[in-house]
Amino acid sequence: MAEFDFIRNVRARTPAAPGVLVGPGDDCAVLARPGGPLLITTDMLTEGVDFLLAECGPQAVGRKAMAVNLSDIAAMAGRPTAAVVGLVLPRTNGEDIAVGVYDGLREVADAFGVPIVGGDTNSWDGGLVVSVTIIGEATGRGAVLRSGAKPGDWLFVTGPLGGSLLGRHLAPTPRIQVALALHASVDLHAMIDISDGLTADLMHILEESGCGAVLQASTIPIHADAIARSKQTGMTPLDHALGDGEDFELAFAVSPTDGARLVRESPVAGLHHIGEFIDAGLWLVDGGVRKAVMPSGWVHDLK
Amino acid sequence: MAEFDFIRNVRARTPAAPGVLVGPGDDCAVLARPGGPLLITTDMLTEGVDFLLAECGPQAVGRKAMAVNLSDIAAMAGRPTAAVVGLVLPRTNGEDIAVGVYDGLREVADAFGVPIVGGDTNSWDGGLVVSVTIIGEATGRGAVLRSGAKPGDWLFVTGPLGGSLLGRHLAPTPRIQVALALHASVDLHAMIDISDGLTADLMHILEESGCGAVLQASTIPIHADAIARSKQTGMTPLDHALGDGEDFELAFAVSPTDGARLVRESPVAGLHHIGEFIDAGLWLVDGGVRKAVMPSGWVHDLK
Repeated sequence: MAEFDFIRNVRARTPAAPGVLVGPGDDCAVLARPGGPLLITTDMLTEGVDFLLAECGPQAVGRKAMAVNLSDIAAMAGRPTAAVVGLVLPRTNGEDIAVGVYDGLREVADAFGVPIVGGDTNSWDGGLVVSVTIIGEATGRGAVLRSGAKPGDWLFVTGPLGGSLLGRHLAPTPRIQVALALHASVDLHAMIDISDGLTADLMHILEESGCGAVLQASTIPIHADAIARSKQTGMTPLDHALGDGEDFELAFAVSPTDGARLVRESPVAGLHHIGEFIDAGLWLVDGGVRKAVMPSGWVHDLK
Repeated sequence: MAEFDFIRNVRARTPAAPGVLVGPGDDCAVLARPGGPLLITTDMLTEGVDFLLAECGPQAVGRKAMAVNLSDIAAMAGRPTAAVVGLVLPRTNGEDIAVGVYDGLREVADAFGVPIVGGDTNSWDGGLVVSVTIIGEATGRGAVLRSGAKPGDWLFVTGPLGGSLLGRHLAPTPRIQVALALHASVDLHAMIDISDGLTADLMHILEESGCGAVLQASTIPIHADAIARSKQTGMTPLDHALGDGEDFELAFAVSPTDGARLVRESPVAGLHHIGEFIDAGLWLVDGGVRKAVMPSGWVHDLK
């Protein structure tokens, strides 16, 4: 749900309403409810922007649509409860596309025990749009927001980054279990899922937390796809790891004490300690040189 | 949320999952939560099908998108809690359109005290799509479903019907307050909002309740727009009242005792007693003649 920024830019934030603990600006909204905080997030995928239907087929679209929403629940260290789906179908082959998308949605939803409880289906002369809304709940330890990172905290990511456009972007694994395991073992100060790109999403944490960060280039896990992609683009693998989006790994902040324990005990596989939070700015230390980083989000280019 | 039928037709219903009290097939899904049942509904509007952007402007699109979802909460006699919004914007004038749609969404949401707590914004080379998901809660008397009508019950509607395409379809008034007032004063056996058309939506109640109904033609309230529209189409005003969609009035079933009390005491303005539930079939008594009714839904024709 990170992409509500446009509305945030043209409209002031929704005024605090009774019961709205967290509104636009985090991965999920958090609502106070008698049975405990409720999480809600929505994300839609559009043909030609988020997927090329003729290349990937409708099942992959369904899988991705469910996975990216579950990833927003993971970013709050929440548990998903139920999903509703909106489909806008092209008139040509609409029924086949609907069946395929629904198969893909169900495959990922079933893997996480999330029932699809309702939806809305439409046909038109345009392209395919898939909208998913997921509700979930926070654990007893509460929802993890973007706003709790402090100078001195350690920055981690949950897996290798970059080059997802080579195909991985269509089949992300929402890090629900990883987030719950982390939340149970350490005090997560802030967390986000990497949808726009490591530096762009890290900037969201920095803005919401009011601090800065230094990344250590040599510690950033670079996916094999980032290396393959760098041969196509002429950019470095590190550039791809920093700037590519749709990795859907988690980036999170913990105290140095908890950070050292994560490094020592590895309660969750795949963790990488890639930097520290500081007072201000976003910096990269590479070969002993410290450089200011321009956050670069994902470019809408699927070619 | 009535339009998930397509998915219902191509896929068996979602198997009963723990905590899902009502799944696809009603106006809202109903989920069990410790603090009381949660309602969730989603509906999307697409350019050229649900609205003509150049004619109505973006504010009207936003108003309609919020209102039709609130109407689904009204159909369960629920109270809306919060909304999330997904926008797919054309690249041309996308920002102006977003501002306008958001103004319209907020206007209706504010009127019902519903905060917009998050969303997702996208741009593409296609037309405008607006997706709204609303969560709500049932009152202490529970959510009103489609499935509780019984032979002998009286059928009511909350206002005049037909001809909404002349413009009323863009500015429906969700019958939240009417539904809550009815729910507080009588035992609502079944209820639906009229989105597809009186006979088409009544058929949903009949299917879910396993019974039939007889409509008394002379008692069906005909909107002035149905008369105006009949002069354009050559159909009768009654045809328009029975078949046109997007009235967003409520149709509901109550016992004869409660029905007689509603007629006698009029606790809510605008009620019309238009028929009775019977064992099977859907019939219209018109001029003393009883005819079988073919349910005719709304035709996607905005010309």
